[in-house]
Amino acid sequence: MLVIGESINSSRKSVRTAVEERDAEFIQNLAKKQVDGGAGMLDINVGTRVSNEPEDMEWLVNIVQEVVDLPLCIDSPNPVALERGLKLHKNGRPLVNSTTAEESRLKSVLPIVKEYKCMVVGLTMTEAGIPHSAEDRCKAAGKIIEAATKEGIAIEDIYIDPLVMPVSTDVKCGLLVIETLKSVKSSFPGIKTVMGLSNISFGLPNRKLINRTFLPMVIGYLDSAIMDAGDIKIMATLKACATILGEDDYCMEYITAYREGRLDV
Amino acid sequence: MLVIGESINSSRKSVRTAVEERDAEFIQNLAKKQVDGGAGMLDINVGTRVSNEPEDMEWLVNIVQEVVDLPLCIDSPNPVALERGLKLHKNGRPLVNSTTAEESRLKSVLPIVKEYKCMVVGLTMTEAGIPHSAEDRCKAAGKIIEAATKEGIAIEDIYIDPLVMPVSTDVKCGLLVIETLKSVKSSFPGIKTVMGLSNISFGLPNRKLINRTFLPMVIGYLDSAIMDAGDIKIMATLKACATILGEDDYCMEYITAYREGRLDV
Repeated sequence: MLVIGESINSSRKSVRTAVEERDAEFIQNLAKKQVDGGAGMLDINVGTRVSNEPEDMEWLVNIVQEVVDLPLCIDSPNPVALERGLKLHKNGRPLVNSTTAEESRLKSVLPIVKEYKCMVVGLTMTEAGIPHSAEDRCKAAGKIIEAATKEGIAIEDIYIDPLVMPVSTDVKCGLLVIETLKSVKSSFPGIKTVMGLSNISFGLPNRKLINRTFLPMVIGYLDSAIMDAGDIKIMATLKACATILGEDDYCMEYITAYREGRLDV
Repeated sequence: MLVIGESINSSRKSVRTAVEERDAEFIQNLAKKQVDGGAGMLDINVGTRVSNEPEDMEWLVNIVQEVVDLPLCIDSPNPVALERGLKLHKNGRPLVNSTTAEESRLKSVLPIVKEYKCMVVGLTMTEAGIPHSAEDRCKAAGKIIEAATKEGIAIEDIYIDPLVMPVSTDVKCGLLVIETLKSVKSSFPGIKTVMGLSNISFGLPNRKLINRTFLPMVIGYLDSAIMDAGDIKIMATLKACATILGEDDYCMEYITAYREGRLDV
């Protein structure tokens, strides 16, 4: 599973301050910590600084690429910020995060995805908002997939996000995500999936426990997750998942991780 | 989910010694620890002391019931030991563990289940051994279910065990169990499932990490598990599972457990 490091997000106060003060070292340390933890891609999100988003995105992409050679997930609802980030992107294929099933978003984002030959995240929401059923979220996914493939984007390059909401605000949120993932995976062969894992635990104590419990519940339907690769316990859980799912010949990766002290000891 | 405390099993050296020496206090402390941790039933297994099994079972059932008022899972392949345990059973309905799909086992165990009005575990194996595919394990389950319901046992009283083997001996074991559970649940509406969770991690370091990662992967298809209720981390994982699955209104059980220090802190 592709781990997309989640730490560089201006909804975190320390990141917002670092972006405002152009504190490159702070951001670069966050980026390096995600890489050291095992991230395969880094999410870059400055959505809370709306007025400066394109400039902030440029700055972040540049300074992160000074210290990290992973591809980036350029995370913004703003096509201008997306394009400014993509123009500077250097390492591998970037992931554009995101479009929705809204006509206006599809029309503005998909041509950019096509032009920069990148991959794209499709959020399962429409002009009417976020659907309340797995069936309707799956329909929204279908609309995105139809529009993207029509644009010439390969189905393997589309990552559907079932939209994880906090279980503290609605106890049905977790089940809804699981049902949506199952439904999307069975309805659209070849499609990939992604989600912002830690949204599930917002508002609860010991959020990391909820996050690392949610991961094994959905991993069978998940190709990637935006998550904290700096959290040694969830990364240990991920290693255990791979071993249980038969992806670790002779359990050697698990045993090696144990010897290196990388499992939750 | 019903947690069946696993600690009273003579395959553990300390338990075997305690049984041999009739050390009631040692066994009773194990039993109390499982109850304190949140077990809803206790497994009693003295299968490694074959020659003394019926007497050992009687002794164990008696001394455990002196300190615990939960129902017991009488765990033995030996019908004599099963019946001796059941005769003494006092609290609620016992679970007989187990029959297989073998004719001889079905014939000897099902009448006992019927007579004592208990529930029964059905291991998905046949005269030919343990099947190598989920499809064949599901067929073995079908044979058990057919024979048991013919005997007048309600489907809700049958717990199918997909037979968890160590992933260290065959990397496909985990996936096979997941597929078997899915298949059994979809093929036989109303059927219950159970498994010996910690078998998955035999032979690996940090077994508890594997066990508590496996639980959320299968919980959607699991009605009960034989597991260590004395392991605070796996019990915290179980609490988090219930919260994510929408079984915890307003997340109050999770928040209460956190306040009481019962979550993995």
